[in-house]
Amino acid sequence: MSDTPFQRIIIVGLGLMGGSVAKALRSRGFAGSLVGVVADAAAVQRMEPAAKQWRISLTHQLKSALRDADLVLLATPPQIILQQLPELARHISAEVLVSDVASIKAPIAQLGHQLLGDRFIAGHPVVGGEKAGFAAARESLYQGTRVILTPLPGQAPNAVDALSGFWQGLGATVSQMTPEAHDQALAATSHLPHLLAFAYMAGLDDQAPALRDLAGGGLRDFTRIAASDPDLWAAILWENRAIIGQHLQALQKTLGNVEQILAGGDRSALRALLERGRDCRQQFQFPPVHP
Amino acid sequence: MSDTPFQRIIIVGLGLMGGSVAKALRSRGFAGSLVGVVADAAAVQRMEPAAKQWRISLTHQLKSALRDADLVLLATPPQIILQQLPELARHISAEVLVSDVASIKAPIAQLGHQLLGDRFIAGHPVVGGEKAGFAAARESLYQGTRVILTPLPGQAPNAVDALSGFWQGLGATVSQMTPEAHDQALAATSHLPHLLAFAYMAGLDDQAPALRDLAGGGLRDFTRIAASDPDLWAAILWENRAIIGQHLQALQKTLGNVEQILAGGDRSALRALLERGRDCRQQFQFPPVHP
Repeated sequence: MSDTPFQRIIIVGLGLMGGSVAKALRSRGFAGSLVGVVADAAAVQRMEPAAKQWRISLTHQLKSALRDADLVLLATPPQIILQQLPELARHISAEVLVSDVASIKAPIAQLGHQLLGDRFIAGHPVVGGEKAGFAAARESLYQGTRVILTPLPGQAPNAVDALSGFWQGLGATVSQMTPEAHDQALAATSHLPHLLAFAYMAGLDDQAPALRDLAGGGLRDFTRIAASDPDLWAAILWENRAIIGQHLQALQKTLGNVEQILAGGDRSALRALLERGRDCRQQFQFPPVHP
Repeated sequence: MSDTPFQRIIIVGLGLMGGSVAKALRSRGFAGSLVGVVADAAAVQRMEPAAKQWRISLTHQLKSALRDADLVLLATPPQIILQQLPELARHISAEVLVSDVASIKAPIAQLGHQLLGDRFIAGHPVVGGEKAGFAAARESLYQGTRVILTPLPGQAPNAVDALSGFWQGLGATVSQMTPEAHDQALAATSHLPHLLAFAYMAGLDDQAPALRDLAGGGLRDFTRIAASDPDLWAAILWENRAIIGQHLQALQKTLGNVEQILAGGDRSALRALLERGRDCRQQFQFPPVHP
């Protein structure tokens, strides 16, 4: 991986997303310096053996790590990124590019551009998993997945090209959107499904003892994402709450229609709805299932 | 598999469910006769080579197949089972046990008992898959999964034991419920998730071209079951529509509450909801993921 546009990379947050970037870089032969910024001294100590295997230097001091970097990748939850951006802006040098991997883009892109201008380009790899932490991170996570960059209109094309090249080097396909279009689209393809999976399981709470042995692979997969981190998803849903709220209204209307179809005895309308859902799903290009 | 309680087995419908029973029987050494009843002469011809590999005799004439059987397993969609039961009742001998694998139990158990009395015991292996047909059927489908039998109260214990032994011989765990309790429970653990997955995808229909490349593993798994057969699921949902309708009402209320949580600015309530969903999910015993 001698053609990577960056040689000194800082990854802030070594969970599933950030850890997978680090592992992917090393497994593809990245020979530059790789610094992981973690929460505190205890985390440094705890993660030291695993990080050493991947030749990642650990620190919990963002400020000191910043001295030597060409790329800073923020891979913490969105509410933490929003806290870290001001600190970053105070200490960062002029030549560093900053990006992130959060599932929500508008508030982060807005604050990042305000504080860092052209040095910040928000991004989002459309991939994840319900298992958190560096142990769950895997070198193949970004292989074949899509990364969406949300630069400002006319923002330094060189920087955008470099960041695109970085992700392509990890096997991803890169495209660009505005932060607002991203949040509108991801509300439908990711945020709302997460909210529904969580809410559906929460609705089964009082019946769980009676139902726990009566679920098949359908419920297992339908709610896999409800095993995700509630803090992370509360932050994502919260930051996108205006759009999510509109979707929730539309969904209540849809469910009301389905209820009427069933109550009104319109079996062919029910079948047509299911067929429309199946046909629509066939149009989607989902990322590959990782083992 | 010399200890199976049946030696002459007819499977009506050689799709995912019925085909997997046949393959599981043969792969476990079942040496008795295995007859598959398929839709028509064309299906007999088309499936002949595959069926031969598993030593399954094919016919499309239910009546003539019935002469030589101790177990008839109905593995057609529920609306077909409801059509086949009367024909079965006209031609079946006194010693045959009849069961089924449908995801909906009350209407089938009711008609079965009315027409066949003690000779009918309804059943449902809580497993499935969005891929249909004999080619998708696999010998391991029932390994580690749960089969629910819904006999009448006090119904011939010998027959129930024999049918339990049959499924246990394929690696399943067997339990008993009333048909009504089954349909109430499965509405929550299977029927409604299917309906929601289909309806969710149908709701994305007009945006699909813009969204098709922007979905991750979350939407992929959340809607995997929306790739299922619309005819089959229209039948299941239709037969259970009274209970499904109640669930849809409750769900609209839940979504209305979530909408208010977001609109009212109660972030801690959002987080609490997600945590409750995640914690509830951890109580469930899902079947293993088959490769």
